[in-house]
Amino acid sequence: MHLTPHTTAGRRFVELADGHLEEFRSRAAGHDANSTFVADNFEDLKASGLIGAFVPAELGGLDLQSVHDWAAGLERLGRADASTAIAVNMHFAITRRLAGAWRGAIAAGEQAAAERNERMLRAITTGQLVLCATATEPGTDFLRPKTTATPDGDGWRINGRKVFVTLSPIADVCALNLRIPGSKGTDGAGGGDRMGFAFLPMTTAGFELQDDWDALGMRGSGSQSLVLNDCPAPPGSVQMAGEWGRWNPQVLMGRTLGNLTLVAVFLGIAERARELAVEAALSQSKPKFDGPIALSSGVQHLVGEIDIDLAAARATLGACARRIDELLANLEGKTPALEVAHQVMRDYQCAKWIVNQNAIRIVGRAMDVAGGSAYMTRSELSRLYRDVRAGPFMQPFTPTEAREYVGRIALGLYPEG
Amino acid sequence: MHLTPHTTAGRRFVELADGHLEEFRSRAAGHDANSTFVADNFEDLKASGLIGAFVPAELGGLDLQSVHDWAAGLERLGRADASTAIAVNMHFAITRRLAGAWRGAIAAGEQAAAERNERMLRAITTGQLVLCATATEPGTDFLRPKTTATPDGDGWRINGRKVFVTLSPIADVCALNLRIPGSKGTDGAGGGDRMGFAFLPMTTAGFELQDDWDALGMRGSGSQSLVLNDCPAPPGSVQMAGEWGRWNPQVLMGRTLGNLTLVAVFLGIAERARELAVEAALSQSKPKFDGPIALSSGVQHLVGEIDIDLAAARATLGACARRIDELLANLEGKTPALEVAHQVMRDYQCAKWIVNQNAIRIVGRAMDVAGGSAYMTRSELSRLYRDVRAGPFMQPFTPTEAREYVGRIALGLYPEG
Amino acid sequence: MHLTPHTTAGRRFVELADGHLEEFRSRAAGHDANSTFVADNFEDLKASGLIGAFVPAELGGLDLQSVHDWAAGLERLGRADASTAIAVNMHFAITRRLAGAWRGAIAAGEQAAAERNERMLRAITTGQLVLCATATEPGTDFLRPKTTATPDGDGWRINGRKVFVTLSPIADVCALNLRIPGSKGTDGAGGGDRMGFAFLPMTTAGFELQDDWDALGMRGSGSQSLVLNDCPAPPGSVQMAGEWGRWNPQVLMGRTLGNLTLVAVFLGIAERARELAVEAALSQSKPKFDGPIALSSGVQHLVGEIDIDLAAARATLGACARRIDELLANLEGKTPALEVAHQVMRDYQCAKWIVNQNAIRIVGRAMDVAGGSAYMTRSELSRLYRDVRAGPFMQPFTPTEAREYVGRIALGLYPEG
Amino acid sequence: MHLTPHTTAGRRFVELADGHLEEFRSRAAGHDANSTFVADNFEDLKASGLIGAFVPAELGGLDLQSVHDWAAGLERLGRADASTAIAVNMHFAITRRLAGAWRGAIAAGEQAAAERNERMLRAITTGQLVLCATATEPGTDFLRPKTTATPDGDGWRINGRKVFVTLSPIADVCALNLRIPGSKGTDGAGGGDRMGFAFLPMTTAGFELQDDWDALGMRGSGSQSLVLNDCPAPPGSVQMAGEWGRWNPQVLMGRTLGNLTLVAVFLGIAERARELAVEAALSQSKPKFDGPIALSSGVQHLVGEIDIDLAAARATLGACARRIDELLANLEGKTPALEVAHQVMRDYQCAKWIVNQNAIRIVGRAMDVAGGSAYMTRSELSRLYRDVRAGPFMQPFTPTEAREYVGRIALGLYPEG
Repeated sequence: MHLTPHTTAGRRFVELADGHLEEFRSRAAGHDANSTFVADNFEDLKASGLIGAFVPAELGGLDLQSVHDWAAGLERLGRADASTAIAVNMHFAITRRLAGAWRGAIAAGEQAAAERNERMLRAITTGQLVLCATATEPGTDFLRPKTTATPDGDGWRINGRKVFVTLSPIADVCALNLRIPGSKGTDGAGGGDRMGFAFLPMTTAGFELQDDWDALGMRGSGSQSLVLNDCPAPPGSVQMAGEWGRWNPQVLMGRTLGNLTLVAVFLGIAERARELAVEAALSQSKPKFDGPIALSSGVQHLVGEIDIDLAAARATLGACARRIDELLANLEGKTPALEVAHQVMRDYQCAKWIVNQNAIRIVGRAMDVAGGSAYMTRSELSRLYRDVRAGPFMQPFTPTEAREYVGRIALGLYPEG
Repeated sequence: MHLTPHTTAGRRFVELADGHLEEFRSRAAGHDANSTFVADNFEDLKASGLIGAFVPAELGGLDLQSVHDWAAGLERLGRADASTAIAVNMHFAITRRLAGAWRGAIAAGEQAAAERNERMLRAITTGQLVLCATATEPGTDFLRPKTTATPDGDGWRINGRKVFVTLSPIADVCALNLRIPGSKGTDGAGGGDRMGFAFLPMTTAGFELQDDWDALGMRGSGSQSLVLNDCPAPPGSVQMAGEWGRWNPQVLMGRTLGNLTLVAVFLGIAERARELAVEAALSQSKPKFDGPIALSSGVQHLVGEIDIDLAAARATLGACARRIDELLANLEGKTPALEVAHQVMRDYQCAKWIVNQNAIRIVGRAMDVAGGSAYMTRSELSRLYRDVRAGPFMQPFTPTEAREYVGRIALGLYPEG
Repeated sequence: MHLTPHTTAGRRFVELADGHLEEFRSRAAGHDANSTFVADNFEDLKASGLIGAFVPAELGGLDLQSVHDWAAGLERLGRADASTAIAVNMHFAITRRLAGAWRGAIAAGEQAAAERNERMLRAITTGQLVLCATATEPGTDFLRPKTTATPDGDGWRINGRKVFVTLSPIADVCALNLRIPGSKGTDGAGGGDRMGFAFLPMTTAGFELQDDWDALGMRGSGSQSLVLNDCPAPPGSVQMAGEWGRWNPQVLMGRTLGNLTLVAVFLGIAERARELAVEAALSQSKPKFDGPIALSSGVQHLVGEIDIDLAAARATLGACARRIDELLANLEGKTPALEVAHQVMRDYQCAKWIVNQNAIRIVGRAMDVAGGSAYMTRSELSRLYRDVRAGPFMQPFTPTEAREYVGRIALGLYPEG
Repeated sequence: MHLTPHTTAGRRFVELADGHLEEFRSRAAGHDANSTFVADNFEDLKASGLIGAFVPAELGGLDLQSVHDWAAGLERLGRADASTAIAVNMHFAITRRLAGAWRGAIAAGEQAAAERNERMLRAITTGQLVLCATATEPGTDFLRPKTTATPDGDGWRINGRKVFVTLSPIADVCALNLRIPGSKGTDGAGGGDRMGFAFLPMTTAGFELQDDWDALGMRGSGSQSLVLNDCPAPPGSVQMAGEWGRWNPQVLMGRTLGNLTLVAVFLGIAERARELAVEAALSQSKPKFDGPIALSSGVQHLVGEIDIDLAAARATLGACARRIDELLANLEGKTPALEVAHQVMRDYQCAKWIVNQNAIRIVGRAMDVAGGSAYMTRSELSRLYRDVRAGPFMQPFTPTEAREYVGRIALGLYPEG
């Protein structure tokens, strides 16, 4: 009943992922105990070639294109070590955009852009380029970043603070969302603030990593804070992307595609918890049952409830990812209408809600089945219990916003910002 | 986000179903008020050809084969009139088996059987043959029917009582499950009781329809009781199907395939309730909101919760049906191993649980959105509230059994009976 | 574990209620089938003296004062016939206010008022006066009635439409909430609209009962519509009660005290469903269990879930009612601060949510336990399924509003209207 | 809406508890980080006299007797530091039994026993005697301890292993449940195994504390393992308590009274999470709301859901504890019938289920409200998330057993063991 890849590249992607699981799982407790970044796992991902999943075949990558199959692979990684999975997902999301940009440049005959992208994509396959991204700041939301890019000569100066910058300990380049102050005067004339995106080396002057990642779970993900202290950005490195504080279709689609497969990681955690529950039920005995506790109808009920919740989580995520694959195929690289982009986001939000809520319940029930030993630090379940709780915080739309958002789309009341 | 057919026959099937919805919905309140069978709708189903959905193309039917697309069509019918949908589903399930038998007979070169089946299938397309089935008796379960077939000359005598015989008011033939007493003596020697199946005309002597269908909902489905009073059954009309009281793969697969698409009807009820909730939210106004109640964040939350529950229900049923299509394609007409048959049943039970529980919640929330008017008899929602509650009673495995069953399969503790 | 009365009057109240249960239950199916008002039950309530529950002892009543014990009695009535219970609750709520007014008039030495109230209270004990109330209109909420009282000489003219006027078929007097148009001009000067309350005989000219009560459940409650067609109201019959559209402590407390015990009726429905589930589990047998289905662990799980949900529902309602008794004792007839009135309403809303949601689930699980027979019209459970769904619609604060309201109170964001 | 003590001793108990909260909360993060026992808090509990809560007034204690008020105090402690609360609860439960034994001895004129108990009770008030208990072993349940007491001269030898021995780092005496092998031969003659209880100094030879407490939460509770390695127990130190593996009323009541108030600790965690959620909602701002996030209707919904779940949890626990106080008053020291003891256990199990499940959901929602900062180790909510998960593991009857148990009691199918 697991998510099953249906493209050739997807099958290869999942196969490579499967090859890492045992090793990654064996290292997970250590990284968790010490809150150390999973750098060793990334060496393995480079060695196996998984790191280049989205790099086109012509440039030496796996040529993965299906969002559904991407999710299938992430689910596997999530079963072994969720920290690694969320970290590499960020790299995949940006690689995927680079590959799209390369294909677009080729098609448009823009050779300079094609070559620039090709260089980066090739560097990814050789493990020389790892990409991260950050869109979270304290006290605001994605659409209203406070980190500001102000013009400075032909280039820019960037100041601000980003948090939860997963993968930052080893990333070479970081994608950022920004506020670009407009020229609007008090009389309303002139332009308002714009949303901007930049793509900058981690070696940029003023990039100050805070080494402050000490969290409940996902402790191997390196999700430290990043202070941007008057960082110079060269001309052309900041792109405008619509009005600050307002949704537009590009931004909506980008947020959906950049985050949807994170949900698969939490599905993977739930799948693993289910495995551990079944193992516990079959291996623990009690005199009362004169055999394994699997013979207890109470245990059977809990495992049944786990499987019912898993069925819903898997199917909803799978269906959502398939529909996105179909939509992207139909769009042929074009941007959809705002309403369509909102509907896609709505589908993703439904899947996110169902997977996260069900996964949390599933891990809880697995602990119930396994009993008190699941409460010990040495138990893998106790790590899953901590890791799985990261799910609802993932952007965009947390539980404080998701139900209202989904309801508004259903009612045709598309939010502007 | 609806279930979308993906075969050509499936698309035609759904298209024809869509053509009936308006008319069926307009008649639903009348049949509901008077508990009258939806005979008029069946005349329409014959006229449109939908009645022959599973009849092979060579014999004049739609040649529907995909279980997934079958579910997609039933979901549509469920949106208009659930009574009609559950009634015709029974006919479809048996037609589907007949079509399989015809194909099998052709392949095996069994001409007499092929001709017999062909005659029936052709009679279905001309509306002269409507099929029903019954497997429910008071005080027992499917595997342990009390209705008994005892040898009588070369044939049989059948005695017993069946309940919830949906579609019986107009059915021409009825499929029954039976107990065939064995010869096992007190010393355990000889054979034990066997499960049997018969396929008998409704005009059989001793078939006494009770005209006692007066229920909370599904009032147009004609689900009256049937007393079998010493009914003669000709030689060859009763087939053995394994041991009484024990699962075997054929029986398991038959139960899954005969009942899975019933679940789609309850999904259809939920889809309709969601439509009505959205309509109510956009059309009702209150001074407090100075506009439609859709502007209320409480209404938005409820509609969001409806859509989240719907997403899970649709996806789980869709994924389950797709997997069954794939399995059947791989089996190429062969019977799967007992374990596989249990796993398929488990998948179906997960889908059934999710769809039924979610659909009940969805109808409730839609009533909350629509407000007090939804409580009036004239409100379509008040009918949906009654119809949707039939879902959990559907066999096999009601809420008293489903979680334990699913848990046992997950734990490898396959129940014997 | 039932709600247990703890005052002497409360014990007598519950005892009298218990005496009616058998008879009321025996009549329930008939009134339900025909949507006839439970007039026979009201004759019994008059005969037993229960009708005068809140009439002071000096005036021949039971002298009931505890809100908690009131709830305990209503829960009992709800177990037998919820239609009767919600109808008489309305009468109780207004009798209670009259008794308070009588006590206040005595204390203040206002003899005329005391005598007027005494006459009414005595008429209640002799069965000559039954009181109903209505605060529901289509397309608006309690705080913003559209029914308008305009000055007419020394008196008033009333026009509008009320719905869900429970008990109206036999009520002698009806309490109404009204809008009294203010004199506010376009410049904002003058007074705005006021909320008003009137207390008028059902024989008032222009009172047009619509005989249109045909609902999913609560079919014996006579909750028809009432058109107010230019009704004359004598001088002094309309009282002002603060600003139209804005909460004030009196109105808040009145709404809480007038509606809280309605919730007990739905608890009673749940208690009865639980009884029927246990009876069914012990009386139905299946060959599979070689005895009653109570031996099935699935049935045990469902009954356990019923009892857990019942425990929460009972305890929450009981605790809420006790706290209100304590608060009222402390207030000694004074009106609390607005914040306190909101907190009391919040407590009631929490109890209402828990009881209604749990009761709906409990009835559903009881049907699961009882099996398909619970779906037949003749089954008491199928009536409970319809009756219990009235709960969430009860004012004030339905599921579209309750969670937000409770959250706002917790956050100190008291809504103004 | 908090649990409010209603006895004089209870009010004093709660007052003293309140006096500790600030200090205990300030130490909680440190003990949690290092998994160190909360010995400092126990010094404070001795200094304030809270440690002698159940010691009769005549012997210098608080004379606490109400179970309800005991729960009220534990809830307070749970709000500050759940590790301390569960540790001291164990001490309270055994002190309470000692006080009962002292009163019984006085009443029966058994002077030696009275003096022995008096000495212990006085030692408790002076902080010289702290009591712990253990009833949990790996791979079995409370009724079937594997730890065995075998006769050795006039005394006993004890061997086995206990886990989750909360408070053991500073306890002076430990209560244990045991198996006493019977003389039943293979022909069934002779006596079967008996359940035993012992009360032994922690300094007993062979008591080997394992210093192995390293868990997900409750890290300050010192719940290490205890190996019993051929420990000598003096004559009279082991008491028989019915048949091994079978419930009897004394054992049932003992388990209920020893564990019920543990549930209050988890209610306290939920109460604290709610406080933190409200604080976060009022103190965090976002540009989107142009003010605190409390203005978001999504936040209001979540806080409303928290308060609804809290209302049910508080009320159910409160009602259960009150009923036990009433029952104990009626029993006047006598043991109830087995059925009554099961019904009391059932009430406790309902309260336990509701409080634990609701508390887990409440902490989750509080994290949702507070946002990503709640996921950091420095956040109190992240500790509550870990501590609250201990609740379902608490004995007797975990989620693998509770629903079936409650259902069986409702159905009159009292389990024997």
